[in-house]
Amino acid sequence: MQDQHAWSGRFSEPVSELVKKYTASVGFDYRLAEFDIEGSLAHAAMLGRAGVLSADDLAAIRRGMAEIVEEIRAGRFEWRLDLEDVHMNIERRLTDKIGDAGKRLHTGRSRNDQVATDIRLWLRAQIDTIAGLIGELKGSLLDLAEQHADTVMPGFTHLQVAQPVTFGHHLLAYVEMLSRDAERMADCRRRVNRLPLGAAALAGTTFPIDRHYTAELLGFDGVCHNSLDAVSDRDFAIEFTAAASLLMVHLSRLSEELILWMSPRVGFIDIADRFCTGSSIMPQKKNPDVPELVRGKSGRVVGHLVSLVTLMKAQPLAYNKDNQEDKEPLFDTVDTLIDTLRIYADMMRGITVKPEAMRAAVLQGFATATDLADYLVKKGLPFRDSHEVVALAVRHAEGQGVDLAELPLAVLQGFSALIGDDVYAVLSPEGSLAQRDHVGGTAPARVRAEIGRHRAQQGA
Amino acid sequence: MQDQHAWSGRFSEPVSELVKKYTASVGFDYRLAEFDIEGSLAHAAMLGRAGVLSADDLAAIRRGMAEIVEEIRAGRFEWRLDLEDVHMNIERRLTDKIGDAGKRLHTGRSRNDQVATDIRLWLRAQIDTIAGLIGELKGSLLDLAEQHADTVMPGFTHLQVAQPVTFGHHLLAYVEMLSRDAERMADCRRRVNRLPLGAAALAGTTFPIDRHYTAELLGFDGVCHNSLDAVSDRDFAIEFTAAASLLMVHLSRLSEELILWMSPRVGFIDIADRFCTGSSIMPQKKNPDVPELVRGKSGRVVGHLVSLVTLMKAQPLAYNKDNQEDKEPLFDTVDTLIDTLRIYADMMRGITVKPEAMRAAVLQGFATATDLADYLVKKGLPFRDSHEVVALAVRHAEGQGVDLAELPLAVLQGFSALIGDDVYAVLSPEGSLAQRDHVGGTAPARVRAEIGRHRAQQGA
Amino acid sequence: MQDQHAWSGRFSEPVSELVKKYTASVGFDYRLAEFDIEGSLAHAAMLGRAGVLSADDLAAIRRGMAEIVEEIRAGRFEWRLDLEDVHMNIERRLTDKIGDAGKRLHTGRSRNDQVATDIRLWLRAQIDTIAGLIGELKGSLLDLAEQHADTVMPGFTHLQVAQPVTFGHHLLAYVEMLSRDAERMADCRRRVNRLPLGAAALAGTTFPIDRHYTAELLGFDGVCHNSLDAVSDRDFAIEFTAAASLLMVHLSRLSEELILWMSPRVGFIDIADRFCTGSSIMPQKKNPDVPELVRGKSGRVVGHLVSLVTLMKAQPLAYNKDNQEDKEPLFDTVDTLIDTLRIYADMMRGITVKPEAMRAAVLQGFATATDLADYLVKKGLPFRDSHEVVALAVRHAEGQGVDLAELPLAVLQGFSALIGDDVYAVLSPEGSLAQRDHVGGTAPARVRAEIGRHRAQQGA
Amino acid sequence: MQDQHAWSGRFSEPVSELVKKYTASVGFDYRLAEFDIEGSLAHAAMLGRAGVLSADDLAAIRRGMAEIVEEIRAGRFEWRLDLEDVHMNIERRLTDKIGDAGKRLHTGRSRNDQVATDIRLWLRAQIDTIAGLIGELKGSLLDLAEQHADTVMPGFTHLQVAQPVTFGHHLLAYVEMLSRDAERMADCRRRVNRLPLGAAALAGTTFPIDRHYTAELLGFDGVCHNSLDAVSDRDFAIEFTAAASLLMVHLSRLSEELILWMSPRVGFIDIADRFCTGSSIMPQKKNPDVPELVRGKSGRVVGHLVSLVTLMKAQPLAYNKDNQEDKEPLFDTVDTLIDTLRIYADMMRGITVKPEAMRAAVLQGFATATDLADYLVKKGLPFRDSHEVVALAVRHAEGQGVDLAELPLAVLQGFSALIGDDVYAVLSPEGSLAQRDHVGGTAPARVRAEIGRHRAQQGA
Repeated sequence: MQDQHAWSGRFSEPVSELVKKYTASVGFDYRLAEFDIEGSLAHAAMLGRAGVLSADDLAAIRRGMAEIVEEIRAGRFEWRLDLEDVHMNIERRLTDKIGDAGKRLHTGRSRNDQVATDIRLWLRAQIDTIAGLIGELKGSLLDLAEQHADTVMPGFTHLQVAQPVTFGHHLLAYVEMLSRDAERMADCRRRVNRLPLGAAALAGTTFPIDRHYTAELLGFDGVCHNSLDAVSDRDFAIEFTAAASLLMVHLSRLSEELILWMSPRVGFIDIADRFCTGSSIMPQKKNPDVPELVRGKSGRVVGHLVSLVTLMKAQPLAYNKDNQEDKEPLFDTVDTLIDTLRIYADMMRGITVKPEAMRAAVLQGFATATDLADYLVKKGLPFRDSHEVVALAVRHAEGQGVDLAELPLAVLQGFSALIGDDVYAVLSPEGSLAQRDHVGGTAPARVRAEIGRHRAQQGA
Repeated sequence: MQDQHAWSGRFSEPVSELVKKYTASVGFDYRLAEFDIEGSLAHAAMLGRAGVLSADDLAAIRRGMAEIVEEIRAGRFEWRLDLEDVHMNIERRLTDKIGDAGKRLHTGRSRNDQVATDIRLWLRAQIDTIAGLIGELKGSLLDLAEQHADTVMPGFTHLQVAQPVTFGHHLLAYVEMLSRDAERMADCRRRVNRLPLGAAALAGTTFPIDRHYTAELLGFDGVCHNSLDAVSDRDFAIEFTAAASLLMVHLSRLSEELILWMSPRVGFIDIADRFCTGSSIMPQKKNPDVPELVRGKSGRVVGHLVSLVTLMKAQPLAYNKDNQEDKEPLFDTVDTLIDTLRIYADMMRGITVKPEAMRAAVLQGFATATDLADYLVKKGLPFRDSHEVVALAVRHAEGQGVDLAELPLAVLQGFSALIGDDVYAVLSPEGSLAQRDHVGGTAPARVRAEIGRHRAQQGA
Repeated sequence: MQDQHAWSGRFSEPVSELVKKYTASVGFDYRLAEFDIEGSLAHAAMLGRAGVLSADDLAAIRRGMAEIVEEIRAGRFEWRLDLEDVHMNIERRLTDKIGDAGKRLHTGRSRNDQVATDIRLWLRAQIDTIAGLIGELKGSLLDLAEQHADTVMPGFTHLQVAQPVTFGHHLLAYVEMLSRDAERMADCRRRVNRLPLGAAALAGTTFPIDRHYTAELLGFDGVCHNSLDAVSDRDFAIEFTAAASLLMVHLSRLSEELILWMSPRVGFIDIADRFCTGSSIMPQKKNPDVPELVRGKSGRVVGHLVSLVTLMKAQPLAYNKDNQEDKEPLFDTVDTLIDTLRIYADMMRGITVKPEAMRAAVLQGFATATDLADYLVKKGLPFRDSHEVVALAVRHAEGQGVDLAELPLAVLQGFSALIGDDVYAVLSPEGSLAQRDHVGGTAPARVRAEIGRHRAQQGA
Repeated sequence: MQDQHAWSGRFSEPVSELVKKYTASVGFDYRLAEFDIEGSLAHAAMLGRAGVLSADDLAAIRRGMAEIVEEIRAGRFEWRLDLEDVHMNIERRLTDKIGDAGKRLHTGRSRNDQVATDIRLWLRAQIDTIAGLIGELKGSLLDLAEQHADTVMPGFTHLQVAQPVTFGHHLLAYVEMLSRDAERMADCRRRVNRLPLGAAALAGTTFPIDRHYTAELLGFDGVCHNSLDAVSDRDFAIEFTAAASLLMVHLSRLSEELILWMSPRVGFIDIADRFCTGSSIMPQKKNPDVPELVRGKSGRVVGHLVSLVTLMKAQPLAYNKDNQEDKEPLFDTVDTLIDTLRIYADMMRGITVKPEAMRAAVLQGFATATDLADYLVKKGLPFRDSHEVVALAVRHAEGQGVDLAELPLAVLQGFSALIGDDVYAVLSPEGSLAQRDHVGGTAPARVRAEIGRHRAQQGA
């Protein structure tokens, strides 16, 4: 019989099939279904308390919705494109089940505030999952860092050997990044966790609603204080995607390093076979596919961020249909983050470290030259002069094809008379490490202290 | 029994399920199936001609592939995640059907050059479809422009009324944009249409292949001249997505205008009901959902462009797994373009124009002030002085709440003695239009000439 | 005489002029000068306290730096490209003034941690300025909202007339957005305000530094806990630019509306002449240049965000020269924000509102149709049925060319027998507004309450 | 005295200083000055020919403009912010010099079409410069490739050793990329090289202009065929920036490789000192600053692309002030490209290759495993089976810590009885290379042939 749309009475011509397909969102927003029902139940409870909905209607709605949740979970719910979106699909099913009470559910709200509520409930839950997974990945990294709190490796700047660090210290850099990611997710969650429901289409409603009560039922920290803003605000989606982009950038950096470290010329680590794939043509290949994909997927998330910003740019108030385009980028960002964090936490437990290769690399780059410079400063030479002395010594050693520690004392003294035979203690990687013993430094004791600090925070 | 991977012999540990899901591409690259088969058949024909494949093997491959194509078209082909990608799914099925001949098909190629070939074949076909749809949309616009070659509307700059134009002239601006889009697509197609096959994994192959023959069979204009570049180049995907972004930006501009024009305060047009939707709460609403979604979807395509650029940034040669991330943005860009162009061509035929509102608007903004200035210049006043005279006249008319044409001659002459009673001819919208009679101008005759020019080109 | 570089001893060939120009940063990082000196003085004080620097050296450094600050403020400081960056320019000048003490200043630090400290000090100061300017703009908006707490205007969705709102309520939507912007800036500030100094090049230093003391002197909330992260982290720049992008997106939305509202067909407002410009050719034009530029500049800031994300993607640890590219996007983002906020706060005080045009517009779009639907619901009709009744009434009224309030009671009753003559009270814009009397609703009383709430928070 | 603006007559209040600064463009668009004059002279010549401008006026304009060009070149031209932009600065100066004739120059045009013309003239010239510089960089790469047409290095996929290639072959991959960049620049140039002048403000002009004549004088290929499009089109800026982004992505890839190759663990190349810098703290450092900056600057150009796309998204026709924001991203993109190409061409001539390190690396990754697989295929084994045999052989060799070529024949035969003692010929890197002798393959003869082909095209 007649058209199924929620708004059809005014129209003289049915919507074309192509338009239906183009404008329908149920193909992706069905993911919001349980959050939509959660929101509807809270709205209904509030309407009941306010006397807008009768106790019978409320009971019917609860019963109907419980059945619908079961149907959805069992995969028996039939999503219909001609009903446009998740909201209308559920409401129609409810009305089929319970009659007029279902039609009364939409009193005092609109799809504009309803979808804004759904997406916030959904995103809040995803942020909590993500926060947990960040914690797990930090746990993996902390365990590996602890095993290698003393393992010497070259610290690089400009991919040139700079100074010795420990592998544990290097890993802790990523723990710091992830800690900031967790902070940003928590900050974002506060702005997600505000109730738009009650804004109705854009101006609020004439029914005697109690938004604080609905907020309380749904666990929101507060309500959106302006109805026009409530239905048109997508800041939280952009802020979340920006935080997600930073997280992916961090993992792209770690991925870049894992790939480099596993390259045979570098040979610092091996990644367990179960995270690698081979080649259809080159039988010897073992490829670090997972970190490569993660590096690639950082582009994906950044792209979604740009989509969302472009989407919102210069939109007049209040709700415009453009906003429907917020969901797919957000869904895909969340999926990418969750899959990536999960696989990464697992993969970091499958890393085999090759300490001998790391140590050999330290000796290929005059890594303790700064220690020699510091040594001279402590003997009284101004830093800039000492730097120049060591630069000349390095040039000489490089010409000879030897490390600084291999130059005889007499030769070293040729560069500065301040050098004594205690110099060789500072020229070893371990000597270098041990001296960098302050908050944030690479001394093994400091690495262990930082691991303890992070674990204490995680526990908290 | 054993693991299904093309490369498993070297590995001591099977890939984890999570990794399989994370790294598999068959969930989206199955779309390439028929192009993959087309490429394989050409490769096999070339190998047969080169004596690498026997006539029997070639016949078996052709027979097997024909069956597979049928299975795919009939929806009977079972895509298996554990076979990773579209290539291995098809090859495995082929081998199940025809035995060793199927295993010989991969001689002299690698998945690296195979997927690069598939994606180029696929994209070439999509570009051809898109080019056709751009033509159809231009056709719609030209028809509407022709109907309104004389319809007066305000030309806006800064959304302020500037000078009268015709609605047909306004629409032709978009025809120009779309013509450039078509040019860019054609330019991009030339760079898509080069054969990477034969690059094998990255260095070429030891088999006596004839790449020009394969290129000819597949309709490529030429071959990629460097094997490392052939497998790692994704320029064409970025170039295409950049061209697609521009196209979407153009449609976002037209959409912005349609939305404005349909806003009741402006009231220049109506869009047919079948392209609009209503509100679940406000019974009077008729919303221009299609143009709003198009405006929103411009962000989507721009996001994909950024994804792809970010993906390729700083990747070392040659193939890296990152590149697998090229497909989803490209697929979605193509889908968005095709759907949008199709619906837009249809929608432009459902526009109702309201000439009286357009004409009324011309009279709300002193649209012929420039005509008065030009009139004075033709009477001998330097342009800058004439501009100043008219500015003062406008200020006076605005104070009186009347249009320039409504000022008595004596008043006008108070601003410049050069004004005679012939001035009223240039102060009417039609007078203004008619005088802009040069290539690119808005005079109705010129608008008709341009429509003719575009149609002639389309026909060509 | 010899080369001026801080690192020249090891090199056999001078840097080419082209390379100097390409790699030098002093052309833009001179802006950090006073923050660089502030950081150096704190570092020196810490070194003095730790016994690494003598009291005499410290005194000399303080004296020298005081002179340099004066030279910079007086515009007498000569920035030299061949000294690469702001740090070396200042240090060289200091050494010229005070000799060896100047050379000792760089003890226990590196340019890597030094520049990271400078940029954080600088950004912290800018965030404070921006926070103040956001407050000023909110103040402007609140004042205007208060003047128009009762002014009726159409609330739009899809740029179609939806329901009546007050202009004050509409403005408060932007106050909400700006409040979130201020929150995000404050959150970002916490992550900016951590001390990297002490990380030295990447691994910490062998000198007995006290990073907490330095942090205290510089007003940092804490220290960066990992030296590799400290020198390579640019999260704060990205996070700031993301927050800035959102702020610009908000202002682009308001700008879009100002431009629309000032378009003669809409005619809701006028913008004071001092924020507009004219046309070199069309004497009647008055163009809203400022909001147009703001709308355009949103692209600029979004572009900087993308620059910075792309910059950091897949960079291995620790410091790489790529990072030098962080400054210009960040500087330009800050400048754009500060200029834009300042001009916007001023411009909003120069808005003239035209209430009669706004009220007329409300009557052009059946803005109270929802009120009629709600009325019927309150009489007992389920919402979905009532929606359908009103849709038919609107269709009838539209056919007659009249508003709902203009239909005779008998006609209205033809659509539903539930309608009584009390219906006309809910069909007026003022009646509609008054009923939306809950938190976030558009009732004038609620608008005033929200203004009070914001002012109280501003005051706090 | 009075206000200086071109449009001041209508305004009752002067523009505020802050607004002047915010909206003025002369701070950056002065770069267009000579192109502005070139365009004005052509416009004047056309007006003269059309009888709109007298011979005397034309002569005066030519004389005045010649003086102004001299003043600009000599740095004596004073740019005034209160005159807004480059156009008004020049016109005012002209009028000061020659009186009323200067005021007549603006007849039949507007700043909207004037600036569009200027920017196209300017960009056309920049594209020509860039095309030349791409050619120079290709020349550098071809020379280096020729020197190393036989130099064995590992070809990598996934940064794992894949198959031997020659260093010359590897470099030619970049020559291919640059050749596509040059193609794209040429395609873009065709769309840049169309004349907008004559569109006037947006609708054309009432003066009898001859746009084809102006186009001919200025060397344009044709005219823009729609006046509204002519003044609002910025496609060419976006297309150029997209092409520039791809070029920068290519150079970011080469930079990534140079940085890796110069890392001591890899040690494939050295970059001349004059392109490197040192460390202020680590005396041994020699950092590849130039490739790092290039890698970083790719983000800058991508950011500009996003700026420009965001700028144009959803702008209604015709000219809006937003468009003024097109210049700075475009200027900076051009500057970045020109500087980068110039320095890169020079730097590639300063690369020292270390063939022994490259050869050693080939032997660290079973680079000839594919050759063994192909060998078995040629003996009759299906490819997939042969792949499996070799995978097992590699696993065995890896366990022994030897290369495949080091396994005794008996051991190899244990994996397949098809192996004979001719196998050792295909297991050497040189044997592997020589066999990849087809178009695009890495055989030294093919590398030389490709160098010849590129040189022939360059010469053409």
